[in-house]
Formats: sequence, C-alpha cells, structure tokens
Amino acid sequence: MEGVVVLLNCFVSPFGNRVRIALKLKGVAYEEKAENLAAKSPLLLSSNPVHGKVPVLIVDGKPVCESLVILEFIDDAFSAAGKPLLPADPYSRAHARFWASYVDTKLNEAGVRVWRSPKGATAAVEAARKDTVAALKTLEAELGGKPYFGGDALGYVDVALVPFAPWFLTYERFGGFTVAAECPALAAWAERCARENACVAESLPEAEHVFQFVCGMRKAFGLD
Amino acid sequence: MEGVVVLLNCFVSPFGNRVRIALKLKGVAYEEKAENLAAKSPLLLSSNPVHGKVPVLIVDGKPVCESLVILEFIDDAFSAAGKPLLPADPYSRAHARFWASYVDTKLNEAGVRVWRSPKGATAAVEAARKDTVAALKTLEAELGGKPYFGGDALGYVDVALVPFAPWFLTYERFGGFTVAAECPALAAWAERCARENACVAESLPEAEHVFQFVCGMRKAFGLD
Repeated sequence: MEGVVVLLNCFVSPFGNRVRIALKLKGVAYEEKAENLAAKSPLLLSSNPVHGKVPVLIVDGKPVCESLVILEFIDDAFSAAGKPLLPADPYSRAHARFWASYVDTKLNEAGVRVWRSPKGATAAVEAARKDTVAALKTLEAELGGKPYFGGDALGYVDVALVPFAPWFLTYERFGGFTVAAECPALAAWAERCARENACVAESLPEAEHVFQFVCGMRKAFGLD
Repeated sequence: MEGVVVLLNCFVSPFGNRVRIALKLKGVAYEEKAENLAAKSPLLLSSNPVHGKVPVLIVDGKPVCESLVILEFIDDAFSAAGKPLLPADPYSRAHARFWASYVDTKLNEAGVRVWRSPKGATAAVEAARKDTVAALKTLEAELGGKPYFGGDALGYVDVALVPFAPWFLTYERFGGFTVAAECPALAAWAERCARENACVAESLPEAEHVFQFVCGMRKAFGLD
C-alpha cells in the first residue's frame, strides 16, 4: 500500500507509541501530529468520533482507530514492508493476540488505578499495586527464557507492551514498588527492547517525562 | 486444518456463542462441553489458567482463549472452510475489528452494569441504562441501512454482536426501556440474523432463559 500516512498521537501514550514503533519497524514513512488531550484537534474528533482518543492512523484520508486494530492494519496493509508483526501460524497468531489483549485488559487497567487514585486512597492504591504487580509477573512468566515475547526478535506482543515500560517509573512512585525487584527478567526485557531496536528507542518518551506529565494530569483532575 | 475441536462454553455466554456461530458458519465439526461457572471444570481451569473463563476452543489439545481472538483463529485456521468472517481489504478488516471491540468495551461493559447493580441502586442503574442505550444507538448508526454489519451477509461484527440480542430482554427488564422503541433498526437486524441464518438461530438461547439465569446469578451474588 502506498499513500500519505498521518499518525495522531500524544508523546506519552503507550497506545500511540505502539503505532510509532510498528510504522518504524515496517519502514513506513509517516507524519506525526501531536495532540493536546486537553484541547483535542478537530481532526482527531472527526477521525475518531466514537472515542475521540489517540492514536488514529490516517492513510490517504481514511482513519483507523484503536491501537491493536491499527497494528493489525499495519500488518495487513503494509505486508510487503518489513517483517510481519504477527507470526504466520494460526495458533501462534492467536497466542500473540491473547497476550496483547492481556496488556490492555489487565496491565493497563490496573496501572491506571495506581496513578489515578485520589491522594490518601491507600486501600485503592494498594489493591491497584497488587493487581499491577500480578499482571507484570504473569507477563514475565509468559516471556520465560526468551529474549522477546516474539521469540528471537521483536513481535506483536513486544510492540504492544514495550510502550508501557516508560510508565513503570510512574507505577513505582505511586505504588511503592520496583519492577526490577519484582520482575527482573521483564525489566531486562524492556531494556533489551530499547537497546537492540532503534524503532523502540526512538519511539519512547523518558520515564521521568511521563511521571511529570502524570503529576500535571493529577493536578488537573484534582487528585492531589 | 483438520483435528478434534472442542468448545468449552456456557449456554448464555455471548462470548461463547460467538464461537458457536462461527464454527457453524464455517461448517467445522466440534464437540461442546457445557461449563458450570459456579464449579469450573479442571479442563477449563487448565486450558485458560490466566482468566479461567469461557469460551475456550481446544483444537487437537491446544487451547485458544478470548472470544474475538478465537474468531480470528477460526478465520485463520479454517480458511478453506466456508466464507471468511473478516473482509479481505485491510481497511475494511480494521473497520470490522474496531466495531467488534466496541461491542466488548462499550455495550457489554454498560449492559453488565444494568443487571448487576444491587437492588435499589437507582442512580447506578440509570447511568448504566443511559450508557447501554447510547452504545446500542451508536451500533444502530453504524449498521445504517445495511441488512448486516457485514453488508449483504453475516460478517465478523454480526457474529460478535448478535449473541447479545438474547440479553436485550434482561437489559430491558432491569433498565426499564425497550430496544425496539430505542433502536428499531437494530431490533430488526437481530431478528433478521436469526431468521435468515440457521447458524445463529441454532446457537442462541431463549431471552427468557437468559433472564432466569441472571435472576439466579443476582441471588447468588446477594444483589436482590
């Protein structure tokens, strides 16, 4: 597929940064437009009227929304470019899709609760910390002894999960734990992803910048 | 793909019934094992250790979990059997995946809140009713004037959504509205799906049985 490719994103978004990584991995030329989530652009609202959220990938004027849907789209539409994100075997594809879905429904769900709980909501934060650590441990068990979830190279689950790594510091500061102590193999995997893959290193924000962004959001939401 | 195909399901599960419909649509021979969700089988717990939920599709002993992942697996693995669930064009595939995801994240999320709120939680039920009706209306707008979400025939979104139709009566009784009045085209679509597709009619429970099942669950959960 040829065409003008535009990504609507916000630099901290783990969902948007999945798409960044996938486009770079595939060698697809694209233009990124930075969205201010407190004042969303008319283009974002018109191209994702249902959710009004980043990321949106717009190819020749046609929008695709929802980050995992976009990853599949990139694999389907730019199949001639770069290595496929998903494996070819049906069972392996299902396995990868299962774990990508797990990242959204379990890790992200719990992680958001860690940093978005009102100040002083000790029990809620403790429950969120417990769920976040459990999700990270489950992912670490799935990684096992492999260098990547995709095996010897970055694959669909790696691309889906690694944009959460810059959020670990935020989970840690609000949750009172460290990923390195709880899940050393997962922490090493996150470092390996960035060290061995320029497409990852170039796509992710500094963890400290994510934390500052979250502190700003908490103030805006009246949580502090 | 050839092999022994086993579906772990519960007769009211909209997620499990997606898989039933897809297998019938593809003409795949399978054996269904009914799960009692109050006393899950060792097979269910060992084949879906992460979530412990139906549906699980087991093909030659290898389990696939998560209903939308299973639908994609069926399309990938049984590609020679029957018509594909997903369209061939990458953009149309993304569009279908977006709306199937919408069913899970918006309609199901709100629908569960309608019937699972404790007795007397009027504000919670009212908010849930509002969200459910909004999700149904959004889906009705997406359907537009087409006979099916998939166009002229049942497709991926139809298979993902239609097992919720037997739950409409439960939404209506707890939420105090009717789908026929709020979304007449969607109500007509649900009837059309069952009338014109044996794979749908044979796969879905009676709405009244779903309601009775939910009443039993509410008692078990101490909600009444």
